[in-house]
Amino acid sequence: MSEERKIPYKIYLEEDEMPKAWYNVRSAMKNKPAPLLNPATHQPMTAEELGGVFCSDLVAQELDNDSAFIEIPQEIREFYKMYRPSPLVRAYYLEEKLGTPAEIYYKFEGNNTSGSHKLNSAIAQAYYAKKQGLKGVTTETGAGQWGTALSMACSYFGLDCKVYMVKVSYEQKPFRREVMRVYGASVTPSPSMSTQVGKKINAEHPGTTGSLGCAISEAVEDAVTHEGYRYVLGSVLNQVLLHQSVIGLETKIALDKYGIKPDMIIGCAGGGSNLGGLISPFMGEKLRGEADYDIIAVEPASCPSFTRGKYAYDFCDTGMVCPLAKMYTLGADFIPSANHAGGLRYHGMSPVLSQLYDDGLMRAVSVEQTKVFEAAETFARVEGILPAPESSHAIRVAIDEALKCKETGEKKTIVFGLTGTGYFDLVAYEKFHNGQMSDYIPTDEELAQYASRLPKVD
Amino acid sequence: MSEERKIPYKIYLEEDEMPKAWYNVRSAMKNKPAPLLNPATHQPMTAEELGGVFCSDLVAQELDNDSAFIEIPQEIREFYKMYRPSPLVRAYYLEEKLGTPAEIYYKFEGNNTSGSHKLNSAIAQAYYAKKQGLKGVTTETGAGQWGTALSMACSYFGLDCKVYMVKVSYEQKPFRREVMRVYGASVTPSPSMSTQVGKKINAEHPGTTGSLGCAISEAVEDAVTHEGYRYVLGSVLNQVLLHQSVIGLETKIALDKYGIKPDMIIGCAGGGSNLGGLISPFMGEKLRGEADYDIIAVEPASCPSFTRGKYAYDFCDTGMVCPLAKMYTLGADFIPSANHAGGLRYHGMSPVLSQLYDDGLMRAVSVEQTKVFEAAETFARVEGILPAPESSHAIRVAIDEALKCKETGEKKTIVFGLTGTGYFDLVAYEKFHNGQMSDYIPTDEELAQYASRLPKVD
Repeated sequence: MSEERKIPYKIYLEEDEMPKAWYNVRSAMKNKPAPLLNPATHQPMTAEELGGVFCSDLVAQELDNDSAFIEIPQEIREFYKMYRPSPLVRAYYLEEKLGTPAEIYYKFEGNNTSGSHKLNSAIAQAYYAKKQGLKGVTTETGAGQWGTALSMACSYFGLDCKVYMVKVSYEQKPFRREVMRVYGASVTPSPSMSTQVGKKINAEHPGTTGSLGCAISEAVEDAVTHEGYRYVLGSVLNQVLLHQSVIGLETKIALDKYGIKPDMIIGCAGGGSNLGGLISPFMGEKLRGEADYDIIAVEPASCPSFTRGKYAYDFCDTGMVCPLAKMYTLGADFIPSANHAGGLRYHGMSPVLSQLYDDGLMRAVSVEQTKVFEAAETFARVEGILPAPESSHAIRVAIDEALKCKETGEKKTIVFGLTGTGYFDLVAYEKFHNGQMSDYIPTDEELAQYASRLPKVD
Repeated sequence: MSEERKIPYKIYLEEDEMPKAWYNVRSAMKNKPAPLLNPATHQPMTAEELGGVFCSDLVAQELDNDSAFIEIPQEIREFYKMYRPSPLVRAYYLEEKLGTPAEIYYKFEGNNTSGSHKLNSAIAQAYYAKKQGLKGVTTETGAGQWGTALSMACSYFGLDCKVYMVKVSYEQKPFRREVMRVYGASVTPSPSMSTQVGKKINAEHPGTTGSLGCAISEAVEDAVTHEGYRYVLGSVLNQVLLHQSVIGLETKIALDKYGIKPDMIIGCAGGGSNLGGLISPFMGEKLRGEADYDIIAVEPASCPSFTRGKYAYDFCDTGMVCPLAKMYTLGADFIPSANHAGGLRYHGMSPVLSQLYDDGLMRAVSVEQTKVFEAAETFARVEGILPAPESSHAIRVAIDEALKCKETGEKKTIVFGLTGTGYFDLVAYEKFHNGQMSDYIPTDEELAQYASRLPKVD
């Protein structure tokens, strides 16, 4: 490893090379993502209807399937400079460890206090809320990365931030809760007794430790019943993928700078925010027939929405107060087995990615968590960074693909998204070390049960 | 904040701008730091004696008061590229928040999995151990940053790593322990029953939760009683300050690149590793009369070695197995009050910094921890980064100095060291939020008691 190298270990863009506009991959899609539907009428949600829940500029972004680029407001670009550009790292040490001819790069989004890429959209959503003169925003958080990101963004713009945190996480991750408090957010365990939907769920399921779908319902209710508040969401939505395109744009600029052309782009997929952002500009080229890339979504075998879900309209939340979205879904009441660690536990998937997947423009693989943590540890030991369990799904498949190259002798260029750090996931690492981590793959019968409760939409 | 700025928010050096040699500030000192003494004979430790405890190349560095520059071996420079250069950040948002005419910069060392600057010396010490053909190294850790850094470094070079972790931290910080296990280190709570000194301390103080000085004794005993092992230390020693000079060198290169000349350089000081590293090249200029800088060490009011300690020979550890060092010290059995949060709890101070301080080349201030956490939160909310409690001591004084500038209208340029992140310190943040954090300043009588037990050295 001591020879001088043409490609540096880390590629950082200069401030003036950073993207000035987000890229909207929907503009290049022939088959646009299906519209959100009003859950009562099953008609497409109008801008006016959506405006009751979301900020108006974000509604416009949500519905805009045509603009290729949307300018990043100066205020957001200023904030991005606090933690961006994120480095594109050449995984020299991992390549050496694997003995692969493949060249591996990863885009590392964990160098900020939220510990993940979530901040990219949080700051955008907070900005538009502020611009609209709102008092504050509400949201849900599971593992806590999104809640932390939003609390940081709201603190920056002086907005009130109300976070409904899945009760089991609230209790098991007091540190995440505490970070949000540093940034001035109020954090409520969900289901709570302060919303109608929370009371109802608590009454029907006494002692429940909550779910993401339930926390979403509470956050939405809180927003629509309080003057000057709107709801914000950290994944799934079109607007979120738009903001997250900054990941892919920076990646592409960095690769282009060194004349590197990836063969394969890999990302973990829960709701799709990271993967959708990472692949956006590359998928744009693919859709326009300018380039071809093997794009892989990696999901947990215990929450396999792409690989074993249905492509259908479904509720985004448990309380069924949100619009219906057409997506690959396991059913709105699906909750991964209790032994599932980390995020990537949402029952559905971004409508944009769902359409692209259905059109055969990307593929998906599912992996079991013990294999994921093995990959995480291998990676940590050679590349230094302790990865988040979510990100480690992408690491697992990047390693598997690099090992295939070792067998075939192919010198593929692999890019994957390293979405965040695992500093708040050490309970899961401990389980892994102590041999207490197990895998659970839902049976076909279980999945069929959940799917049987999908709403009927013509 | 929207106008274009001449100085970017973050200054990153290119790989080829990174330092190729460490700077040895001792070379410029007229009064050299006092030598380490053999605790039995009170004679200066010879290279041979030190070689029983430390790797031979590190002994040479420890004793070298003359070489101005010592080349950084290529293998270490390769590792540095995994997480360096660290950014020098212009604190535009903090300046704006304070409304100060001062210009504030901070060198941020927290963007790596150890969460601090400790990795800079850990990788160097592991490298020389490997080069010497050793099997492994032993060390102690308190809060866990140093132990984590060393376990990462040992994992990289395939060395065995044995960490004695202060028992109270071992129990209260299971996450830190778990990170070390990810990197393959063995972690033993100290005092343990596996060393003579541990057994003795346990017998004399049943139920003790340990101290740094005690863990050092255990680690040293483990190293000297096992073939192929040496002891390594994360602070205080001359060699550590040498390795940490990479912080100051990068800072200076970045500042020079933009023609910025600091008036004031501020760093937190526990054993002195960060501060010593940060100021090295600047102190070199000051010693040579080429420039003047106001250099400030910040320490906790609850562990005030500079501001209220004696400049005297003292033991480095509780078990008194280590050499004697001449330093500002509170006495080897001093332990900060139980309400003291975070690091910066060592009873002594780097002999290099002690000599520089005694010669009037730098000053020191002490601050109370509630004021420190106030500064930490202010900083986190505007600059995004959640700082370590240790680093927040420097933030406190940087803010205080910037507010003085606001009063006087002076446009001083302030540089401070942001040594790490506070992701593993959220118990302390929680105490602060809940109003449960208190301050304790040792009385003169208490300090006199500890000082009365200093060894007599002619």
